[in-house]
Amino acid sequence: MFKDNEQQPNGFTLPLAQALDHLRWNADGLVPAIARQHDTGEVLMMAWMNREALEDTLRTGRVCYYSRSRGGLWRKGESSGQTQTLIELRIDCDGDTVLLNVDQTGPACHTGRRDCFYWRADGAQLVLDKAPLIDPADLYPDKR
Amino acid sequence: MFKDNEQQPNGFTLPLAQALDHLRWNADGLVPAIARQHDTGEVLMMAWMNREALEDTLRTGRVCYYSRSRGGLWRKGESSGQTQTLIELRIDCDGDTVLLNVDQTGPACHTGRRDCFYWRADGAQLVLDKAPLIDPADLYPDKR
Repeated sequence: MFKDNEQQPNGFTLPLAQALDHLRWNADGLVPAIARQHDTGEVLMMAWMNREALEDTLRTGRVCYYSRSRGGLWRKGESSGQTQTLIELRIDCDGDTVLLNVDQTGPACHTGRRDCFYWRADGAQLVLDKAPLIDPADLYPDKR
Repeated sequence: MFKDNEQQPNGFTLPLAQALDHLRWNADGLVPAIARQHDTGEVLMMAWMNREALEDTLRTGRVCYYSRSRGGLWRKGESSGQTQTLIELRIDCDGDTVLLNVDQTGPACHTGRRDCFYWRADGAQLVLDKAPLIDPADLYPDKR
């Protein structure tokens, strides 16, 4: 469906439910979802969505992923309070990746950093170059 | 290794080769790689890298992916001329995603559009809302 319609003009529409049937869900029923801060263009994190998480996100306007480690829906911020409000959900040309333009409250990363990409390749090393905004112990007080 | 060092201070380093040993390559030996235009913050595309592609990217400064459809290295732009110059390569907190800050020449998408995320969810529909910069027939003249 995505391939067949890639040359359509601006404004062309597909029924969402039918398009979701044609997403290229992987063997586990998941697609990667990239969260980007809508106004600054920071890439905050990458996580996974199953169909239920994607539909929950569109319905509620709050981003919901699928946690591969916990094996269930992960409503971003439900433990930490650091929610992602959905501004815009986009799908790519071959229907196998989701881009979420979001408004992130505070840190997106479980380490308390604004985003998850804090390791930078520099010659023969990886350099950690971002500091936490919040102590992770304060993000997840139940885990103390 | 990534988990063990998530509370290190800014400036902490890991040996790159050892860190790559600890990336969470999937069952096919791949990690997702997000390409972002370094100055505008546009998310251009998401593709996959094996270790060879990642090392090739760092060595050459030109982004190289692994093509799952062709089953080999995919030096971005080798057919289309639309290369991605690497500005910065980053790895996320749990070592399973790569973020590439790049300088993209022209369109990143095989459809001739600047980026691949041209389907936007709007109520019960997906709306195509980006037009090609270049006719795809001119991007891949060998395919005519």
